[in-house]
Amino acid sequence: MPKTKVAIIGAGFSANIHAESYNRFVPDAELVAVCARDAQKTERFAAEHRIAKAYCNYDQLLAESGAEVIDICVPNYLHHEICMKAAKAGKHVIVEKPLAITIEQADEMIAACKQSGKLLCYAEELCFAPKYEKVRKLVEEGAVGDIYMLKQAEKHSGPHSRWFYEPEYSGGGVLMDMGCHALAWFLWMNKGAKPISVTSKLQRVLHKSTDAEDNTVVIVEFDNGVIGIAEDSWARHGGMDDRIEVYGTEGVSYADLFQGNSALTYSRKGYGYAAEKAETTTGWTFTMFEEAFNQGYPHELKHFIECVRENKEPVCGGEMGRLVMEMLYAAYASGKSGAKVMLPFTAKVEKPIDLWL
Amino acid sequence: MPKTKVAIIGAGFSANIHAESYNRFVPDAELVAVCARDAQKTERFAAEHRIAKAYCNYDQLLAESGAEVIDICVPNYLHHEICMKAAKAGKHVIVEKPLAITIEQADEMIAACKQSGKLLCYAEELCFAPKYEKVRKLVEEGAVGDIYMLKQAEKHSGPHSRWFYEPEYSGGGVLMDMGCHALAWFLWMNKGAKPISVTSKLQRVLHKSTDAEDNTVVIVEFDNGVIGIAEDSWARHGGMDDRIEVYGTEGVSYADLFQGNSALTYSRKGYGYAAEKAETTTGWTFTMFEEAFNQGYPHELKHFIECVRENKEPVCGGEMGRLVMEMLYAAYASGKSGAKVMLPFTAKVEKPIDLWL
Amino acid sequence: MPKTKVAIIGAGFSANIHAESYNRFVPDAELVAVCARDAQKTERFAAEHRIAKAYCNYDQLLAESGAEVIDICVPNYLHHEICMKAAKAGKHVIVEKPLAITIEQADEMIAACKQSGKLLCYAEELCFAPKYEKVRKLVEEGAVGDIYMLKQAEKHSGPHSRWFYEPEYSGGGVLMDMGCHALAWFLWMNKGAKPISVTSKLQRVLHKSTDAEDNTVVIVEFDNGVIGIAEDSWARHGGMDDRIEVYGTEGVSYADLFQGNSALTYSRKGYGYAAEKAETTTGWTFTMFEEAFNQGYPHELKHFIECVRENKEPVCGGEMGRLVMEMLYAAYASGKSGAKVMLPFTAKVEKPIDLWL
Amino acid sequence: MPKTKVAIIGAGFSANIHAESYNRFVPDAELVAVCARDAQKTERFAAEHRIAKAYCNYDQLLAESGAEVIDICVPNYLHHEICMKAAKAGKHVIVEKPLAITIEQADEMIAACKQSGKLLCYAEELCFAPKYEKVRKLVEEGAVGDIYMLKQAEKHSGPHSRWFYEPEYSGGGVLMDMGCHALAWFLWMNKGAKPISVTSKLQRVLHKSTDAEDNTVVIVEFDNGVIGIAEDSWARHGGMDDRIEVYGTEGVSYADLFQGNSALTYSRKGYGYAAEKAETTTGWTFTMFEEAFNQGYPHELKHFIECVRENKEPVCGGEMGRLVMEMLYAAYASGKSGAKVMLPFTAKVEKPIDLWL
Repeated sequence: MPKTKVAIIGAGFSANIHAESYNRFVPDAELVAVCARDAQKTERFAAEHRIAKAYCNYDQLLAESGAEVIDICVPNYLHHEICMKAAKAGKHVIVEKPLAITIEQADEMIAACKQSGKLLCYAEELCFAPKYEKVRKLVEEGAVGDIYMLKQAEKHSGPHSRWFYEPEYSGGGVLMDMGCHALAWFLWMNKGAKPISVTSKLQRVLHKSTDAEDNTVVIVEFDNGVIGIAEDSWARHGGMDDRIEVYGTEGVSYADLFQGNSALTYSRKGYGYAAEKAETTTGWTFTMFEEAFNQGYPHELKHFIECVRENKEPVCGGEMGRLVMEMLYAAYASGKSGAKVMLPFTAKVEKPIDLWL
Repeated sequence: MPKTKVAIIGAGFSANIHAESYNRFVPDAELVAVCARDAQKTERFAAEHRIAKAYCNYDQLLAESGAEVIDICVPNYLHHEICMKAAKAGKHVIVEKPLAITIEQADEMIAACKQSGKLLCYAEELCFAPKYEKVRKLVEEGAVGDIYMLKQAEKHSGPHSRWFYEPEYSGGGVLMDMGCHALAWFLWMNKGAKPISVTSKLQRVLHKSTDAEDNTVVIVEFDNGVIGIAEDSWARHGGMDDRIEVYGTEGVSYADLFQGNSALTYSRKGYGYAAEKAETTTGWTFTMFEEAFNQGYPHELKHFIECVRENKEPVCGGEMGRLVMEMLYAAYASGKSGAKVMLPFTAKVEKPIDLWL
Repeated sequence: MPKTKVAIIGAGFSANIHAESYNRFVPDAELVAVCARDAQKTERFAAEHRIAKAYCNYDQLLAESGAEVIDICVPNYLHHEICMKAAKAGKHVIVEKPLAITIEQADEMIAACKQSGKLLCYAEELCFAPKYEKVRKLVEEGAVGDIYMLKQAEKHSGPHSRWFYEPEYSGGGVLMDMGCHALAWFLWMNKGAKPISVTSKLQRVLHKSTDAEDNTVVIVEFDNGVIGIAEDSWARHGGMDDRIEVYGTEGVSYADLFQGNSALTYSRKGYGYAAEKAETTTGWTFTMFEEAFNQGYPHELKHFIECVRENKEPVCGGEMGRLVMEMLYAAYASGKSGAKVMLPFTAKVEKPIDLWL
Repeated sequence: MPKTKVAIIGAGFSANIHAESYNRFVPDAELVAVCARDAQKTERFAAEHRIAKAYCNYDQLLAESGAEVIDICVPNYLHHEICMKAAKAGKHVIVEKPLAITIEQADEMIAACKQSGKLLCYAEELCFAPKYEKVRKLVEEGAVGDIYMLKQAEKHSGPHSRWFYEPEYSGGGVLMDMGCHALAWFLWMNKGAKPISVTSKLQRVLHKSTDAEDNTVVIVEFDNGVIGIAEDSWARHGGMDDRIEVYGTEGVSYADLFQGNSALTYSRKGYGYAAEKAETTTGWTFTMFEEAFNQGYPHELKHFIECVRENKEPVCGGEMGRLVMEMLYAAYASGKSGAKVMLPFTAKVEKPIDLWL
């Protein structure tokens, strides 16, 4: 069986992680093309990742590249547009989180892929991060009894790219960027249960010149009595922090993808790279390694390519991404009203953060 | 370029890790055959790892399987015999640690592979464990200044297979099993320097019905003033412990492959598997994940296959394995005399532990 | 200056910690009497802590013991009654948390002590725990910039004494027992700011045969924009967990009083005592030491005795305890309504948990 | 019973810790005098610690102060001289580690105190550090079975005071300063057993302009088969590190006095004080608290004062200090010869380091 042809749209941070993951860990996939706005950057990206063709126009890529799978790694506001065209072109689609800017977009994307008979894969790597998956499996084995509370936190001091802070491109702040991870992971861990309410507290504490919320706490209630607590921040210094806590009636499990995996280094002079968003490498640092692998990107993309090749449904598809969007809407609305927001919830807005601003 | 055909000799613990590593992480390799004594176990192994042919006789495998690379994952006393035949058959050879039982065997193995013009790869995975490699790279960048001391420890409560405790099969106890890791890693971290002496203290504290030493401390002096301290034990309960410490004039770095990577779980009921050699899964446990990857097996085997395909010398070859043998001899001799043993050192013995017993 | 005479009311868990703390660490105090219902237990307590007089009736103690300070270490429902009599008898009063069952009781206690001209000390040891105090001091020095979020969690698998689970004696479940710690500590860390709202989620997950809530999350908003997040649980196995996180615009600080201070032990046979509420001492355990000291009891009681001797106001007095009561009421009310409850808040109830049940 | 009158000789680092410990934690002791060379510094010290009399001449102090106990906290080379005079003056003596510069001095000090009928207390605080003592107690309870190996390490980047680096004042480098801790602790943990050999490796790696060794490993064999491994360094950056590991046939226990007790702080601006020998407070730091208490100084001095008052032998007296001296001699000798040195061992030298230089 020949390799599955994949094109990456985007040449930024997540595009790089995806490309590394395919090349090192997904031998059934072949990167045939990449597309990004800046021609020079795109050429460099193609060269670095040994990709044959580099485009600056994705219509052209869709028409010419021969890719079967379009992996969308661009700013949030472009997800819908590219997904729709890819679906129309008969491609399988992988979309980086969050699925879209609005619920309506999400619905259209799901419908378009259903109509084309192709997969819509929602790239939530926390459903594949190997340490978290090991925890999920021991929970399935009954190690902690019945779950009653799930916690997930992702924190750093803010993205480097400007568009994250501009809601017309991102849809909102840290909730859109990282809150979506926690919400999707709750759905994954508590599979079969339905979220019934969202309560949140949103703050803007560090990036005050922007509209974007940068510190948040979200409480989700599920119909089986389980609660999820998501903490997300762009205001926490000291490098990336990503952790889970799983509480059950017979035990508890804690896992952490960065500090808890790292070497511990003291350096007077500093060194090249410690970890994502680490602000310094002098003094004590938590030295990270194999970050893509530890976050589950290879496992995720391998799964998606397997689904394409074996015509299976991905464990995280458009429906999960769409439900996360709904919960994000509810989180912004609760942040505004201070009240618990019941699900299902929707609203007519241009972007989720409008419900809070 | 077609895939490189690999045959695994052995169907035990390390054979399993190698097979998993090839299949998941080394797409340029193809497992074409496996050979072990027990026909049923071998068939099961072949089925589990999707290997076409299962043999019970490695002469037959060498003659028929078409393998280009023979990966030797059997008890120590068989390394030499199989390597010699594989070399004679014109195969590249990968040998699990330690290289052999005696220095003479090691010399013959090196000579045989040299004569056949094929590679002799010494499978020291610590030279590839990604966390340790990240530390090595920051040391190369100058993060900790000039190294003056290296420490490596590997400890658990003893192997499950009987042959490890029987020196005629193993050559010795925990030094042969795990001390070799530390010694090889010192050579790798302190590349270019020559070990000049070995001082050791060996104990038999837990497995008293055997001849094998089960708790050891070894101090190695190098010609550049660096010292290495190896601690290895089969007497430490609580699951596998593998850690390094790198001390330099400008800093220090600590890394740990098991507890330091794990999720932390409390379970009243227990669960399936926590980590290599963990004795229980109830109460607090350090829950490990992706053990093969974290120990560097995929990176190691990928490197060896790359060397085969590109005709390169492996970073850890027969010479490293042979020098480790010499240091092991010296460690046993020092354990006996209580005195520092200068290198080069050799002795006429049937097995290294004879120098101590 | 002679020693200050102290009488302890109660002979249970917290009475023991107080007695140990006075005797080992507060030389200016002299334990002159103890009072508890069970005569034999009280005698034993007196003997163990070298206390001259043991009473079974606190009226008698108040009349005869000569104590200047009455330290109330009994179940919550007795705080008010004993405090009122002690105040009337002209004694200084120390009350273990929470201050009382109802806000009305708290108000009466404050008024009674004001009238008697004696101190009402609210025994919130987290305001004295030396590790947390070190964090508070570095925050005052500006180490983390402006605080925007405080977190405090206290979790174990539930008290041993029956009365904690019976709201007529306790006033409620884990919020009354341990949530009060977090709320008081927020007030201490964010001194000068006023809490303006409380939002909470309460669950009953492990102790289902009782009325008491046993897992809770509470979000407090302050008028300076800071938020506090309290997590408290009687449903988390594995021994006591007490931790704080302080988030600021220029940094973050994490501290933990139990696991993060402990020795790490693996024992196949087990041993006498690992830590408060630890359910086992076999396998891996976090071995605690000097628990009273690490939780700040000696520092707390030393401060109270100093206040008595030097006629100073304690840093945590009746007003703090009363405000904590109000926040507890609001937390129960929010747990019921699912809505944010604004402060000031009060209600006519027999006990706080009635607002939730 | 009146308080026991104590005079401190010295006004430096350890004098400060002792004074803090007496004042806060040893109510049965009264600091009546302090003596140091620099009058101004001594006055300041006396004022800070509320000590009535400040001397610049210890003969005068011995004659006039009325102290019953002389607590010697001065550079090593003065221990013998002051101890001898104190003994002659009929005082109990507490000597900070190491006991003296030479074995002959140690013998004279022991004899002098025996003759005067007063106590000679050897101030080894590791025999009192509460976390280590908790470990010792669980070992006594059988938690780890039979001990076979003890490890102790103390490391930082070097003392601030100049005299430590000048062997005529100190007797040697890091072994004299900190190696003595490990050796004494081995004797304490393995009580009743006799050390029979010492093997060591000494380096000078960071403080190259001095004669003093600054990185060492020492292996001690005991007559009951237990071994002790001491690692001591003045070359390890990142703040004080003090840790133990206790290995037994049924378990293991790890404890750490600094990093393992600390809050974990990230500060962009820095703050006042993180921990002993911490070189910076910006970035990630391990924030220590109650250092004197955690190292066991209060417990130690309380014990000594109790011994004085109740006429008991201290658990660490002159004999322990003298045996540590012998082991230090052996460690220097082994460092020179590279051979194991059998005990008992002595040599005619002016200072221990002469055996290595």
